[in-house]
Amino acid sequence: MNPSTAHVRIDLGERSYDIAIGAGLIDDASAWQGLPQAAAALIVTNDTVAPLYLARLQASLAPHYRVVHVCSLPDGESYKTWDSLNQIFDVLLGKACDRKTVLFALGGGVIGDITGFAAACYMRGVPFVQVPTTLLAQVDSSVGGKTAINHPIGKNMIGAFYQPERVVCDLGTLQTLPPRELSAGLAEVIKYGPIADMAFLDWIEQHMDDLLARNPQALAYAVKRSCEIKAWVVGQDEREAGIRAILNFGHTFGHAIEAGLGFGVWLHGEAVGCGMVMAAHLSQRLGWVDAAFVQRLTALIAKAGLPVTGPALGAEVYLHHMRVDKKAEAGGIRFVLIDPPGSAVVRAAPDAMVAEVVEACCRA
Amino acid sequence: MNPSTAHVRIDLGERSYDIAIGAGLIDDASAWQGLPQAAAALIVTNDTVAPLYLARLQASLAPHYRVVHVCSLPDGESYKTWDSLNQIFDVLLGKACDRKTVLFALGGGVIGDITGFAAACYMRGVPFVQVPTTLLAQVDSSVGGKTAINHPIGKNMIGAFYQPERVVCDLGTLQTLPPRELSAGLAEVIKYGPIADMAFLDWIEQHMDDLLARNPQALAYAVKRSCEIKAWVVGQDEREAGIRAILNFGHTFGHAIEAGLGFGVWLHGEAVGCGMVMAAHLSQRLGWVDAAFVQRLTALIAKAGLPVTGPALGAEVYLHHMRVDKKAEAGGIRFVLIDPPGSAVVRAAPDAMVAEVVEACCRA
Repeated sequence: MNPSTAHVRIDLGERSYDIAIGAGLIDDASAWQGLPQAAAALIVTNDTVAPLYLARLQASLAPHYRVVHVCSLPDGESYKTWDSLNQIFDVLLGKACDRKTVLFALGGGVIGDITGFAAACYMRGVPFVQVPTTLLAQVDSSVGGKTAINHPIGKNMIGAFYQPERVVCDLGTLQTLPPRELSAGLAEVIKYGPIADMAFLDWIEQHMDDLLARNPQALAYAVKRSCEIKAWVVGQDEREAGIRAILNFGHTFGHAIEAGLGFGVWLHGEAVGCGMVMAAHLSQRLGWVDAAFVQRLTALIAKAGLPVTGPALGAEVYLHHMRVDKKAEAGGIRFVLIDPPGSAVVRAAPDAMVAEVVEACCRA
Repeated sequence: MNPSTAHVRIDLGERSYDIAIGAGLIDDASAWQGLPQAAAALIVTNDTVAPLYLARLQASLAPHYRVVHVCSLPDGESYKTWDSLNQIFDVLLGKACDRKTVLFALGGGVIGDITGFAAACYMRGVPFVQVPTTLLAQVDSSVGGKTAINHPIGKNMIGAFYQPERVVCDLGTLQTLPPRELSAGLAEVIKYGPIADMAFLDWIEQHMDDLLARNPQALAYAVKRSCEIKAWVVGQDEREAGIRAILNFGHTFGHAIEAGLGFGVWLHGEAVGCGMVMAAHLSQRLGWVDAAFVQRLTALIAKAGLPVTGPALGAEVYLHHMRVDKKAEAGGIRFVLIDPPGSAVVRAAPDAMVAEVVEACCRA
């Protein structure tokens, strides 16, 4: 085990696993030891990530499997569909992969979500490993076992809770990330402050310049602390019966932006960044946070390079898309709101108030 | 609780549930009490079953849900596809069903498998209830949480282990079953004898005339005893890491018949009946059962109205389809074989010997 690698444990009984966080882990033999034995592996990746890291991951896996198959999908949220999922199944079945085959998700959140769901469904479940190459995937989507594809009517509507065997976060991959993707990932990092740890929010504010400059130490701490908070939440509520929903801070408004514009126009993290501004405003209107907190959070999100005003789709479009959000119950939209800073709750809010927030936060 | 209703418990910790077995249960208010509370329910059924039982189930569910939606699919194994699954998701999302919505599978094995898989995936999991209306579904497919759809390359390749809240077997539905479907169900009843309980095989032999005449007492015992054996096996091995595979006796050859002819040409139970004959022959060639046992099992399967000679697809076609069976590992086909009568094992067999069995058991 590499001593410079950090480890965060997700504690879920027999489904527990480790997140390894360190620079150069894709090439580090110790990162790939001790996985379930199998004749074959399948790396699922996308056409952007493959030229950068596929050969290196193949080399690291070669000693462990008789054959390492590859399925490379087009890049982007708009490909998080049944068609892409079926491409993975076609490779698995075409290559006669058995139910011990290990899947590796090499890429960002889309690749992780779709590969995890493929692993959950193929022959009713095969093991898989997350190898997230974006900041967003390293701090959020690769951890905790949420897998899914999108449906035209709603994001992540078809999926499974299905835990990976391991998450391997190679911090080196963040150095090649496009600036827009880095900012999108910072939205999910920032999220952990208001919902769980205001000291972490202080730290993020103090180190935003370092994070944007991709300082390795700053990125290492941001990923580790984010994973620790996520592990703490997921360990209490794997299937989102309660507290886990707080991880969706900013996501209800964010999903409406993504669905309203069409998936893939804004990055998920961009929509979440703007959605957190809207959710903070809603928290303020309900009297749970003050204007200074909203201003502070908005300034930090803007500094991270994220949009803080939403697309002017009209309040009705926002409300329409939020009503099919998974947190909605019996037609009522439920929001993750801040009460007080450092703590989140899931509550309903009057449609008229939500509409006011949307109008106030959108660019005409 | 109706005193004439039998109950079999599936013991799986927090995923435990009851199978209720009795005549007229669809109309029995006590069968529908105590399910998870929700605003909406969705009954998934098919165009054959709907005219017979849909209105009665709707009437029984009406007191429990604000709205009971319906999704009726075409009847048949050939519709156990992603397209049908997506029809269910389209109804759920089109009606803005939330993640407490309870799904009811009213039909045979295809409806149960596809509805269970839809429940497993919709918003990452909603509760569902099995209401099997065929003998095959009552004694086998509705019990134990195996859900799936077919892929063109293989049967049940995409699915999940996902347990229902309850199974409600209304024995009255067996009175309207087409004779061919009754026979198909008897294949799965007969199965439990050689793999687990030779006394039950004796009973089946003694009561085959009663079963074919749909004697209610005989059917009630056959369903109850089958469910007890299945519960005993599934309780030991929910996810088929070991012993549960014995429930697939006859299914490896059977899947090859179904895939080789095209899904839906033979009923699943017909293919399993013939597959059991082939698996018994293979067990005999390996020296684990004698010719008298093979003859006895073959005679019983024939008496049940099932085919005992397979379609002459050629041994290579059988072997090809068996290599993508889910039990196969690293390219080796694994068979459920009888050793000795009343007990099953999962083992490999030489391709040449399998080919001999296929040739011996197929009609030119």
